[in-house]
Amino acid sequence: MRAAIFSGPGAVEVGERPDPVIQEPTDAVVRVVLGCVCGSDLWYYRGESPHAVGSIGHEFIGVVEQVGADVRGVRPGDLVVAPFIYSDMSCPHCLNGSTISCPVGGNFGNGTVDGGQGEAVRVPLAGSTLVPVPGSGHPDTVLRSLLALSDVMSTGHHVAAVAGVKKGDTVAVVGDGAVGLCAVLASKRLGAERVVALSRHADRQEIAREFGATDVIEARGEAATEAVLELTGGIGADAALECVGTEQSIATAFAVARPGSTVGIVGVPHGQVPFVETFFRNTGWRGGPAPARIYIPELLGDVLDGVINPGRVFDYETDLDHIADAYLAMDERRAIKSLVRIGEV
Amino acid sequence: MRAAIFSGPGAVEVGERPDPVIQEPTDAVVRVVLGCVCGSDLWYYRGESPHAVGSIGHEFIGVVEQVGADVRGVRPGDLVVAPFIYSDMSCPHCLNGSTISCPVGGNFGNGTVDGGQGEAVRVPLAGSTLVPVPGSGHPDTVLRSLLALSDVMSTGHHVAAVAGVKKGDTVAVVGDGAVGLCAVLASKRLGAERVVALSRHADRQEIAREFGATDVIEARGEAATEAVLELTGGIGADAALECVGTEQSIATAFAVARPGSTVGIVGVPHGQVPFVETFFRNTGWRGGPAPARIYIPELLGDVLDGVINPGRVFDYETDLDHIADAYLAMDERRAIKSLVRIGEV
Repeated sequence: MRAAIFSGPGAVEVGERPDPVIQEPTDAVVRVVLGCVCGSDLWYYRGESPHAVGSIGHEFIGVVEQVGADVRGVRPGDLVVAPFIYSDMSCPHCLNGSTISCPVGGNFGNGTVDGGQGEAVRVPLAGSTLVPVPGSGHPDTVLRSLLALSDVMSTGHHVAAVAGVKKGDTVAVVGDGAVGLCAVLASKRLGAERVVALSRHADRQEIAREFGATDVIEARGEAATEAVLELTGGIGADAALECVGTEQSIATAFAVARPGSTVGIVGVPHGQVPFVETFFRNTGWRGGPAPARIYIPELLGDVLDGVINPGRVFDYETDLDHIADAYLAMDERRAIKSLVRIGEV
Repeated sequence: MRAAIFSGPGAVEVGERPDPVIQEPTDAVVRVVLGCVCGSDLWYYRGESPHAVGSIGHEFIGVVEQVGADVRGVRPGDLVVAPFIYSDMSCPHCLNGSTISCPVGGNFGNGTVDGGQGEAVRVPLAGSTLVPVPGSGHPDTVLRSLLALSDVMSTGHHVAAVAGVKKGDTVAVVGDGAVGLCAVLASKRLGAERVVALSRHADRQEIAREFGATDVIEARGEAATEAVLELTGGIGADAALECVGTEQSIATAFAVARPGSTVGIVGVPHGQVPFVETFFRNTGWRGGPAPARIYIPELLGDVLDGVINPGRVFDYETDLDHIADAYLAMDERRAIKSLVRIGEV
């Protein structure tokens, strides 16, 4: 089969990989319909963090082609959403909502396990990992939003959930990448009354407003902090959501969070958290990789009902042959998030 | 009046201070009955952090002697518990449970505001700060436990509360100082089924067990981590409570916390939190100085009913004339916590 292959920083091209086959009775083979590029893929693409060479991509939706003897819950022909981590959903960690710590779980597209940026994927622990989509004949906008549940929208929901966003809250979202935009959407969905998006790009501001942002702040650093404090009468946001991972964005998130609140952090950390200062304000943090598998069922209903449209974050589209362009467009910030059209439903 | 005076590292002695008088209509003057020394007092006593010279001590119970014209809720003759921070309880931060961030609040015993280690205290914002104790003729054991609510037990409750300790949990408490012991008691009170105390001192282990510890681990560092993981079937504690503040104890708390949990931190930070590792385990933290005023009313009932006996942490007792000994006993680790007997009820 054809699949995206990572061979080193800056080098992503379509190549040949063995056709996936059932290896374990809990496996399924899924034919990929849509894949996409994650902001976190850029870290290794840019050489800023290590990554094994080989198969890549951890976000996809597809159609089940074949299942192993022990797979329950999904059947050949099912349209499925794959969370970016496979997990058994029965260990103490999964039952506690921490699928990332499942001892038999793992990541897609890590060099050895198939990635989502390819024609097909062997999905380990398929019955507990894949979420079947009810109905058929879903329009393209719905398929794009289902793809977003694989990671980016689940991550946006995670950061809002761990920060405890609730009805009536004022939320500040630091970062206007695809995750930040989804965090705006998730905050609105959870009942936030005021959602302040920190963004300096007109196209992203537009999506932020569509997603429910009530205020947009273009400033950065201390000026951004002052602006949020001014908007909140000097109190700070009930929840600050960090969706970038740089030292500055982390500092901003903590600075705009009101005392006693919990900062949500989902940007892969490339900076330190300010510990002592935040301790004396009783401002802690929670976050990390989202347990997408836990969230997908509830978000799926809202996608099918048209309540949320997270697929709106895909503003660049190409096919597997042009996977290199999908990365380049994001690397050069021409795209918020690149969608890769791979197969038909 | 006579009061403890701090004049530099290692130098705490009883001296003369002006008799406190009502300065604002919201003030009260409280005659101190019992005061004590906090673990955090040792940081400046040892010269490890700065502190203004002058009046010290932030934990006390006493009897109201005089109130300003605008004081409601407490009256002369009332036995009261003073939380270690005074606050207005009506600003957005207080209403949100963050009394430490009250813009008109402050600390007792900071060099200018009277401290609790003296014969009397001018209490600012007295009506919203002081908590009157119902009844009369309370025995000494109850008075000692009421004193503990001023800070140490409220702090033990805070660390358990922010970590989300709930019925049936397994809790690991890092630190066997007075706060750690109170965290054991608070965890038990909140319904924890298993409370693992990390302690290597026989006298502290004994109190930990009295307070509800089901397991005691004498090891430190990696050996302690391994021991907690072994006790929890490799999963980690549902809640890890950090009650020391050193680099090692912080590292241990994060290492024994199960994925997805929130580490409670109340030890004044003298180390960094491990950020990246904990991010990938979805293990965040919350904590900081306890909003004692918020907790005292609910804890007070349990003290009066004999449900909890946090005063048990005072294992050294002296009077104001011997305040230097109270510090020395704690500095030399001969005492867990020193009580200072100052007046009569």
